[in-house]
Amino acid sequence: MNEIRKDYFLDRWTIIAANRAKRPDKFKRKPDKQKKGICFFCPGNEGMTPPEICRVEGKNGWIIRVFPNKFPATTKGKGKKGKDLIPAYGEHEIIVETPKHKGNMHDLDEDHLFKVFEVYEERIKVLQKDKKIKYVSVFKNRGKTAGASLPHTHTQIIGLPFVPTLVKEESVSGKCPYCKIVKKEEKGPRKILSDGNVVAFTPYASRFPFEAWIFPKRHVRTFSELNPEEKLSFVKALKEVLTKLDHGLDFAPYNFYLHYSPKGKDLHFHLELCPKMSILAGFELSSGMYINTMSPENAAKFYRSEQ
Amino acid sequence: MNEIRKDYFLDRWTIIAANRAKRPDKFKRKPDKQKKGICFFCPGNEGMTPPEICRVEGKNGWIIRVFPNKFPATTKGKGKKGKDLIPAYGEHEIIVETPKHKGNMHDLDEDHLFKVFEVYEERIKVLQKDKKIKYVSVFKNRGKTAGASLPHTHTQIIGLPFVPTLVKEESVSGKCPYCKIVKKEEKGPRKILSDGNVVAFTPYASRFPFEAWIFPKRHVRTFSELNPEEKLSFVKALKEVLTKLDHGLDFAPYNFYLHYSPKGKDLHFHLELCPKMSILAGFELSSGMYINTMSPENAAKFYRSEQ
Repeated sequence: MNEIRKDYFLDRWTIIAANRAKRPDKFKRKPDKQKKGICFFCPGNEGMTPPEICRVEGKNGWIIRVFPNKFPATTKGKGKKGKDLIPAYGEHEIIVETPKHKGNMHDLDEDHLFKVFEVYEERIKVLQKDKKIKYVSVFKNRGKTAGASLPHTHTQIIGLPFVPTLVKEESVSGKCPYCKIVKKEEKGPRKILSDGNVVAFTPYASRFPFEAWIFPKRHVRTFSELNPEEKLSFVKALKEVLTKLDHGLDFAPYNFYLHYSPKGKDLHFHLELCPKMSILAGFELSSGMYINTMSPENAAKFYRSEQ
Repeated sequence: MNEIRKDYFLDRWTIIAANRAKRPDKFKRKPDKQKKGICFFCPGNEGMTPPEICRVEGKNGWIIRVFPNKFPATTKGKGKKGKDLIPAYGEHEIIVETPKHKGNMHDLDEDHLFKVFEVYEERIKVLQKDKKIKYVSVFKNRGKTAGASLPHTHTQIIGLPFVPTLVKEESVSGKCPYCKIVKKEEKGPRKILSDGNVVAFTPYASRFPFEAWIFPKRHVRTFSELNPEEKLSFVKALKEVLTKLDHGLDFAPYNFYLHYSPKGKDLHFHLELCPKMSILAGFELSSGMYINTMSPENAAKFYRSEQ
């Protein structure tokens, strides 16, 4: 009998359809065909992007580069306001994580990935200096079916004029529910990996096949509150999880995003990785629920196995 | 400046990214390639589906056919219960809407489409006789990118052991908010079409390009409460909207679903059509918000235009 599971504390439900279960390798799919042509994100084409905001220099030129999105979702300026209307005030930036056109995030060495996360934190801090920006959404789309319009690996950052619904719902004022969850999941069947600083696991009510969350063990509100050793553990865990996903499932498309505390609220900083092996269709849109054909316990086994 | 719009009464927000706007025809895409081979839903292959539940007979055999889903999300039986766990009790059925393999829902004549909706209502009634089934979700996935695993046009019905989150949020105990909304939208820039009985419009905070909602004007809790003339208006409106979508955008993939009143609650019966021209990616997953690059006002113009 299938189970309907509730998220740890959100009112979010998933049907874990074990009877529709496929072996992990059945989720493999043909890699997306990507557009050919000039890549705006490659070295040498810097003039084709909007003016650069900042860069991290390596031995032979930039290794990370930040510039505004050419088609921003939010912009500076004024607009109409109403009960059901807010001007889309903010900033929308692109972070190109490596000069290598065919580079993958999981192929970056730990030091480089560490720097990518420091750029995330830096950009969040800079954008939040603007009092009208209430939250900065950091997310990555990898692969065409996961919404990446360009294949060169990059992250997006959107400064928003309010705290998004889901972050609001996850934020608490009292005791942190995640501290307890992280401790429990480290000892259970959904654990992917852990060290003294971080735990990666597949969440109990996983919405998507191979969904994985990475948490620092220590309760911090942002990535920047971690010490260098903890930060390194965090990026190592991410690198390992992404590598397993990619090697086990052949260029799996995915989305990931950071959730951290909005001002004046408390949210245990973490990263949620959502592989795109399934389609949100009529049932999900209609109900606000999910159907997941890969149980998180089996997904965790997949991540833990030698591939 | 882009706008962030709130749904009529849900806490659901969409960035209407007008600066990313494309002309309607830019949303055209290559039709999905569908699997070749034997179609389980075609006449002659009835033995390949689970045992038939019911059918509507035409002059030359069945014209609509209902049978259980081979890979059900919910089933009858017993399972464990907990604070965050419910057995996935229920039934999962397939309604094949026409014997024609290459038939489209919008190509069915009004009388046939009328019968399809009567089958929806009939199945809802039958499934709800089981006291453990609290809501019956009726939805359609059209096209591979919208989640249809088989191309032969069909609808799915899932009986659920509780009222899904989104339906609960939309249900009210007091005055119906939709009655007022429908009246207003009939006179505004988002109207697609209307007659004495129904209104179709693009919702103010449309989550998706070309999203469209169809409402009966009269406040009814279910499709079955409509009189025959109102029912006919409703299916005519759906046929027209789907035809416009298909002709204007070349086999647009889409999802639609019915929302009606759960027992003891009140929800103005309607249909929500969500074309699949965009991908729910990192931003949407992270925030619970949407980015829509086609303003509902322009989408309504598209639907109203002679194509």
